Amino acid sequence: MIRKYTFGNPMETDAVVHKIEKETGEVPFMGVGADQLAFTYKMDDNTRIYGLGENVRGINKRGWRYISNCSDDPNHREEKNSLYAAHNFIIIEGKERFGLFFDYPGMLTFDLGYTSSNDVSIIPAEDGLDLYIIEGESIKDIVKQFRRMIGRSYIAPKWAFGYGQSRWSYMDEDEIREVVKEHRDAGIPLDSVYMDIDYMERYKDFTINENAFPEFPKFVEELKEQNIHLVPIIDAGVKIEEGYDVYEEGVEKGYFCKEEDGTDFVAAVWPGKVHFPDMLNPDARKWFGQKYKLLLDQGIEGFWNDMNEPAIFYSEKHLDEVFEQLEDFKGKNIDLDLYYKFNSLVGGISNNPDDYKRFYHKFHGETVRHDKVHNLFGYNMTRAAGEAFEEMEPDKRILMFSRSSYVGMHRYGGIWTGDNLSWWSHLLLNIRMMPSLNMVGILYTGADIGGFGADTTEDLMMRWLEFGIFTPLFRNHSAMGTRCQEVYRFENIDAFKNIIGIRYGLLPYIYSEYMKAALKDEMYFRPLAFDYPEDDFAARVEDQLLIGDGLMTAPVYEQNAKGRYVYLPEKLKMVKMKSLTERSVELLDQGHHYVDIDLDETVIFIRPNHVIPMSSGGQSVAEVDFGSLELLGYVEDKAVYELYDDDGYGKDYENSDHYTTITVSQDGTVTAKGIIERRYTLSI
Amino acid sequence: MIRKYTFGNPMETDAVVHKIEKETGEVPFMGVGADQLAFTYKMDDNTRIYGLGENVRGINKRGWRYISNCSDDPNHREEKNSLYAAHNFIIIEGKERFGLFFDYPGMLTFDLGYTSSNDVSIIPAEDGLDLYIIEGESIKDIVKQFRRMIGRSYIAPKWAFGYGQSRWSYMDEDEIREVVKEHRDAGIPLDSVYMDIDYMERYKDFTINENAFPEFPKFVEELKEQNIHLVPIIDAGVKIEEGYDVYEEGVEKGYFCKEEDGTDFVAAVWPGKVHFPDMLNPDARKWFGQKYKLLLDQGIEGFWNDMNEPAIFYSEKHLDEVFEQLEDFKGKNIDLDLYYKFNSLVGGISNNPDDYKRFYHKFHGETVRHDKVHNLFGYNMTRAAGEAFEEMEPDKRILMFSRSSYVGMHRYGGIWTGDNLSWWSHLLLNIRMMPSLNMVGILYTGADIGGFGADTTEDLMMRWLEFGIFTPLFRNHSAMGTRCQEVYRFENIDAFKNIIGIRYGLLPYIYSEYMKAALKDEMYFRPLAFDYPEDDFAARVEDQLLIGDGLMTAPVYEQNAKGRYVYLPEKLKMVKMKSLTERSVELLDQGHHYVDIDLDETVIFIRPNHVIPMSSGGQSVAEVDFGSLELLGYVEDKAVYELYDDDGYGKDYENSDHYTTITVSQDGTVTAKGIIERRYTLSI
Repeated sequence: MIRKYTFGNPMETDAVVHKIEKETGEVPFMGVGADQLAFTYKMDDNTRIYGLGENVRGINKRGWRYISNCSDDPNHREEKNSLYAAHNFIIIEGKERFGLFFDYPGMLTFDLGYTSSNDVSIIPAEDGLDLYIIEGESIKDIVKQFRRMIGRSYIAPKWAFGYGQSRWSYMDEDEIREVVKEHRDAGIPLDSVYMDIDYMERYKDFTINENAFPEFPKFVEELKEQNIHLVPIIDAGVKIEEGYDVYEEGVEKGYFCKEEDGTDFVAAVWPGKVHFPDMLNPDARKWFGQKYKLLLDQGIEGFWNDMNEPAIFYSEKHLDEVFEQLEDFKGKNIDLDLYYKFNSLVGGISNNPDDYKRFYHKFHGETVRHDKVHNLFGYNMTRAAGEAFEEMEPDKRILMFSRSSYVGMHRYGGIWTGDNLSWWSHLLLNIRMMPSLNMVGILYTGADIGGFGADTTEDLMMRWLEFGIFTPLFRNHSAMGTRCQEVYRFENIDAFKNIIGIRYGLLPYIYSEYMKAALKDEMYFRPLAFDYPEDDFAARVEDQLLIGDGLMTAPVYEQNAKGRYVYLPEKLKMVKMKSLTERSVELLDQGHHYVDIDLDETVIFIRPNHVIPMSSGGQSVAEVDFGSLELLGYVEDKAVYELYDDDGYGKDYENSDHYTTITVSQDGTVTAKGIIERRYTLSI
Repeated sequence: MIRKYTFGNPMETDAVVHKIEKETGEVPFMGVGADQLAFTYKMDDNTRIYGLGENVRGINKRGWRYISNCSDDPNHREEKNSLYAAHNFIIIEGKERFGLFFDYPGMLTFDLGYTSSNDVSIIPAEDGLDLYIIEGESIKDIVKQFRRMIGRSYIAPKWAFGYGQSRWSYMDEDEIREVVKEHRDAGIPLDSVYMDIDYMERYKDFTINENAFPEFPKFVEELKEQNIHLVPIIDAGVKIEEGYDVYEEGVEKGYFCKEEDGTDFVAAVWPGKVHFPDMLNPDARKWFGQKYKLLLDQGIEGFWNDMNEPAIFYSEKHLDEVFEQLEDFKGKNIDLDLYYKFNSLVGGISNNPDDYKRFYHKFHGETVRHDKVHNLFGYNMTRAAGEAFEEMEPDKRILMFSRSSYVGMHRYGGIWTGDNLSWWSHLLLNIRMMPSLNMVGILYTGADIGGFGADTTEDLMMRWLEFGIFTPLFRNHSAMGTRCQEVYRFENIDAFKNIIGIRYGLLPYIYSEYMKAALKDEMYFRPLAFDYPEDDFAARVEDQLLIGDGLMTAPVYEQNAKGRYVYLPEKLKMVKMKSLTERSVELLDQGHHYVDIDLDETVIFIRPNHVIPMSSGGQSVAEVDFGSLELLGYVEDKAVYELYDDDGYGKDYENSDHYTTITVSQDGTVTAKGIIERRYTLSI
């Protein structure tokens, strides 16, 4: 049951698709502040809090203060309060169980036992929000009700479930050709290569650097023939440059964000000075979305939207002010005070909060200062693309994921988890963040495997891939200036080939589970506590996840570790894999285990009476034979698997032909009900 | 057996006290580079590497690149290569076992399987080093030989084993009085309050801000009457200010580091512009050391030396250059290139590597550019103090610990582990760093409990204290601008009182074990692998430590955790303590266990046939009755404990009267051999 309470005059964010009438009575569960709008709750010692999507720290979010304030911050450190997203949905599970969604586009603080251990306090910067309170028979039920309310999650094309290689940046055709060749030569599967900002002509959106890519459509085609998709990045800022059509059109049509005086707001990002398209204005959004056609027409079938918090290296006005103030330092004897003044002056240039008060949107017909709707910008940039794709390619899925997001954006694209670091603790963060993203409908997601910033190591890359093979977005990405981390650059290339190969082997399961999660408003990744609510210990487990219907993963995330402790909420079948075919199997009892896991070993745990449909792999998704499945399973009585499969491009999701019901009986008989004929082999 | 090999013409660092003749044959174990001086070793998959003292990452250092280059870096992040120290001692344990000590004062790179998984490569910036290769029958034996060679570890006064409260900064007498009163009123034990930089008159070493502390000696006395020691900080840089005697004397005597042209080098730190005393010049060192008398004479009995990497906010010349270059920006249209140029210009002002090439030392009679002996600076600042204390207070211990260090400094003081953060992962780092510091003789050490930078939480503070009660330096310290973290500011003050109370209860054991480790060149903190070399699993344990003879600790270092996995290398007695007296006891078998540990619970594990001598606690060390001991033990056959105790101030460490041999027989009879009479009660 969902109840909606309105405070002040909220702005319509379009987060909610299935509208609900607002209640007039008292808000249940929560105290509501008398003077300042604030929502409070008293926890008992065992209360846990789930949610908040993209954030630092644990699966249980209790014990910290989080602030929804989309931020371009590449240091995902423990003490950070904000990352790139605003995912204002939490579930409180303790003496009471309920979900809370705050539909509010401004800054929102979640003090979850930070100031005082048992006190929850949620405070918006200003009045004007819709609060949804969701009760349900279980955590999963609450998530499902919420997800249904906010609409179906984005579905990526099937090829985007393959392995992607990225780097900031592959500078030209030949570099990309080499990356592809090295993978193909070594037999490492690969489906996509990502193009970071340098593919553009001086960072101008929807342009191609013609020196580096002289015949781009031909190059796109050349790679497609090898089953490789090129995925270019699109930035939020449009370069100010005479003769650049996107800029000129935007100015002419008045589609850019304005200063208070009505002139176009000038910030700077990669291209230098830019205007921001007013993504909150439907006309501007439509116009910007149509621009993706320039690349679609050249054969591109996927994009990632970046810098859309929006990041601001500097605003023109503020930088002018800074340089004016620097004049004061001229000829001075620089003492410590002056030096500190200098430091705070220059340290405050990027992503300055005041800059977010310098520009305005046209939003629902009104002029709204940016900071009041800040968290909607990235969402609406991706919505611009998503709505345009729907119009331009009504029958074809286009890959789309974003850096910044708000609840609602999950309908138009996924996210990657931004500029993480080559830290072991960020592998753990990746694990912990996946279920909370699924809670807000973001299913197509994953981290930069191996870490974006800082230098990676071979073992970190290997361990990270062993988890990464389960994330729908499965991409190796790294920053300029860091150690190159394409897996063929390391020593044990065979191990990498085998681990990535396991992903391709698991694809029938991963794709099927993803699609069912999307179509049924469910979670692909779940903490143990969600599936085993009666198991007190399951609630403590912060480093194992359930993936789809039948699998549990317990990744190794510590350097030099040769294994780890694993908690089994029930008897499970452990399958250790050095490759798709080199496997060992062991039944483990419910309870605690220490499991040896070699550096090059991937371990999965299969739930009783479940089978995992697997393929024999392939060098790309297109090569994977979904028609011939091995059923890797743990069948005590009978296992029934509902397989979803389709052509991977189309949108006729409701077509029942996509489903096959596979039944494995105790004696090993396999029967399949569905229109598609497949061959099955059984490994139980 | 220790063998010494000399390459080029090393500078004498005085790291080694017991000199060894150099060998002339080939270096065993290691390959030596032909062109560039480099030392290489090929590991097998199971080779582990221990050592490197103060550094990031695990107990097993394998898999990363560390660079000995003393750095003022408050971000102890996983990818950092250098912290504040240069501790060039490692032990390789695998198919072969040997220790390596590189006595080299410049930059030294340890590539321990980073570039290539099985390759060790150790490379000095230039020629000129002594390499010591140490073989032994065990890891502990190698450590002991090394420790004997580098001389006895610093011994702190007994009061410095009490709890210390610090903050950057308590600004005046009244703030300090309040801190003391709050502790005393709540019954939280306390022995010292630390005075950070603001106690000085405008950050001038050896001065007191007389507005804040109008009658300093009287105030020192007032606190001593409450058994509280004030511990002021001393910085490396001496303020340039006419009329300031330390400055004027230093200039007059030529004791400051020079530029190439012979003028005094000007850097800036807290006081603004400073000169650095030439700590490497024995005359200057002696002179600087004598200055501590100014505070000793006012009743001070302990110090901490800071900023002695040395940290440089800016050098006068470089800052002038930067401001000159900023002139170029004047009136320009700031485009992105110019903005980046600007950013790299201003970002490179602090701790700029080039600044370390701008000044010179008088070292062994020669003029040596700083960067070539960079890692000796902090060491020799603390040596300045230590040598002076020896002269001024030959019979009394003075507390001394430093931020920067090099092997050899352990004879003059301890270290705290620098500007950590309020991160759960820094609690784990604290645990992991302790044994490697002990390996290089640094026994008096601990981290800023609760975390220095960033905001702490009540639970982090509590869990950190549960480990911190075992670190000889036991101090809560935090930075300006962060959440205040004196424990009385939280909700569950009783729990904090009890945890800190346990420290005071354990003092007879902690002090005795510390003293024996110092006097016998042994380790107070040890990884399990050091004591259980035959146990393959013990080698994997990176989050439990042996403390002294009879204890193991397994701290909780994850937020919201209600327990943890613990590995027992043998049957141990687990003692859970909510307070000194509120305890529960359980015998646990060898092997893996999941142990519930409440947030306010401290757990210790006692080894078979060991007893832990405990006191009944006290509000300060002076109050602790070492004459009446409870023997908390696990006696199967017979336990023999060698207790060390003394007056806590004197230096007659060799006096056999300090030892008592306590024997507990199976039937519970306690017999004690020693000159001091004590009362014993038995809890087994």
